[in-house]
Amino acid sequence: MTNQVIVLNKRPSGKPTTNDFKTLTEQAPDARQGEILLRTKFVSVDPYLRGRMNDKKSYVPPFELGKPISSGIVAEVVESKSEAFAKGDFVTGSLEWKEFQTSDGKDLVKVDPQAVPLSAYLGAAGMTGRTAYFGLLKIGRPVKGDTLVVSGAAGAVGSIAGQIGKIMGCRVIGIAGSDEKVNALKNKFGFDEAINYKTTKDMAAAIAAACPDGVDIYFDNVGGEVSDAVFQNLNINSRVAVCGSISGYNTEEENKGPRLQPIINTKRVLMQGFIVSDFDDEAEEANKQLVTWIKHQEIKYAETIVEGFDKIPQAFIDLFEGRNEGKMIVKV
Amino acid sequence: MTNQVIVLNKRPSGKPTTNDFKTLTEQAPDARQGEILLRTKFVSVDPYLRGRMNDKKSYVPPFELGKPISSGIVAEVVESKSEAFAKGDFVTGSLEWKEFQTSDGKDLVKVDPQAVPLSAYLGAAGMTGRTAYFGLLKIGRPVKGDTLVVSGAAGAVGSIAGQIGKIMGCRVIGIAGSDEKVNALKNKFGFDEAINYKTTKDMAAAIAAACPDGVDIYFDNVGGEVSDAVFQNLNINSRVAVCGSISGYNTEEENKGPRLQPIINTKRVLMQGFIVSDFDDEAEEANKQLVTWIKHQEIKYAETIVEGFDKIPQAFIDLFEGRNEGKMIVKV
Repeated sequence: MTNQVIVLNKRPSGKPTTNDFKTLTEQAPDARQGEILLRTKFVSVDPYLRGRMNDKKSYVPPFELGKPISSGIVAEVVESKSEAFAKGDFVTGSLEWKEFQTSDGKDLVKVDPQAVPLSAYLGAAGMTGRTAYFGLLKIGRPVKGDTLVVSGAAGAVGSIAGQIGKIMGCRVIGIAGSDEKVNALKNKFGFDEAINYKTTKDMAAAIAAACPDGVDIYFDNVGGEVSDAVFQNLNINSRVAVCGSISGYNTEEENKGPRLQPIINTKRVLMQGFIVSDFDDEAEEANKQLVTWIKHQEIKYAETIVEGFDKIPQAFIDLFEGRNEGKMIVKV
Repeated sequence: MTNQVIVLNKRPSGKPTTNDFKTLTEQAPDARQGEILLRTKFVSVDPYLRGRMNDKKSYVPPFELGKPISSGIVAEVVESKSEAFAKGDFVTGSLEWKEFQTSDGKDLVKVDPQAVPLSAYLGAAGMTGRTAYFGLLKIGRPVKGDTLVVSGAAGAVGSIAGQIGKIMGCRVIGIAGSDEKVNALKNKFGFDEAINYKTTKDMAAAIAAACPDGVDIYFDNVGGEVSDAVFQNLNINSRVAVCGSISGYNTEEENKGPRLQPIINTKRVLMQGFIVSDFDDEAEEANKQLVTWIKHQEIKYAETIVEGFDKIPQAFIDLFEGRNEGKMIVKV
């Protein structure tokens, strides 16, 4: 049985291109005693993977040249030589970009295809949802009546962060890069206001107009000039959850802007970066809460599902063009 | 009895000059029933006063043109028509730049001239000491073995922040602007290492060399390029207490630098601004602890004492030239 595998062909310079990836064909593996054989069903492509393609230490080690990329995957157990799993089970975890692979199952979690659709475990009911959940609740610490601004708001994490903000009683303003996204934020995800940063000349003024009481919480997915404009509107004792900084991921030149210290100092801002695994102790509780909110339609999620194992690199590249609405997923 | 009063003559543009201030002579006031008459003994001049000289909302309202400046002052009660104070008492609080003034005593605290020298209540045993204490303990959260970097380290707040860091078991590195200050940090204040940023070409490399285990806590008094260099060396889960940003106080041009979001994000940095009054509930406890540390010589402090009421404006201006070692105080 043949098996397709996508490896890192060369490290991207600036924006990734299809040439940075290569598809190899090899023999599919067999499960040994204690192992399971998995067939990949859904693959998550995420902006943070770009960082791992650089040869630079970060919170996770860089991908190796010529070796498979890994990301969040939902897979089906097609053969089990492990007592912990049965054929037909579905699991999720960090797995490699392979059609088939074996695993000892240690870092995999079984998921229930009846509770929510399988792809949701890569998004709203999985790492993406938890990222929004922990960033907003642990760093943003929303209080009823607070004003929350979310950048990258139509993205997978941003749209959920905003909806959890609404559940917590905040006034929620989203920033996104197209009129379609702005419409989705207001009409699908229930944001109070949304701003298209690509067509707005004076973002600081637009944010001030949308936030008459100033900004208490900023859930930041983008960094860059959008964040500079939000900072102009921060209230005293405001909180900034730094979830991502996609505007700078592909820059080779120095990413410069107004220094933040004077605002952080005079407004006593708390600004904190985080990754979802900082809160792994509470992941199970968060997953349960997210599944409940999804079932009760208190959280809606958008997915852009691309079909075909060979489409994984292009789907990843398209993230940086903003071609996705919500979570970008490849169905295999 | 005549009384000299220093008022804000015009709002400084960039660095303050003596022309921004004016000394008026008026009749000294009389204490009314319930009031005390105070004679100014020691006046604190502080960088943050520069911000209040702009016509711009901040955490405290701006000074008014033609009206007296106020700052931390130690004064002697020369006449009391209040039951709470006796002639000969010494008090401290925010008072006006006047030789004599009356007060209802509400926001004043009595201080003991036997415990520590009176001027210390404007510095190590007062607001300055508490600023270092709360910034380091509440935001920096030092753990034994942590590496602490302090910028503006030879300043009033910085030198105390570093010494509290030593008491907490940290390795402490100071950054200052002259070889004299570097010597004082190492030989007087017990810092483990100190760096002269004015004579060091590659600050990021110098900090890396002084901090082989990276930086866990950064107590930031300066902002600007020095802080950019410290950020290059922050560890995962590090904490940055943003106490001040003196490098930008006098800039009229835009204060730009590398954006911090990518580092805050990947290193999960907590960065927080604060002012000492955020922790007023715990001020009494902090004051007691500081007086004890000073008495036991666990905290040493430097003062630059200038004599003469008319020297207050120049002493303030000299702060921005780094002419002080430790707390800048005017003795009247």
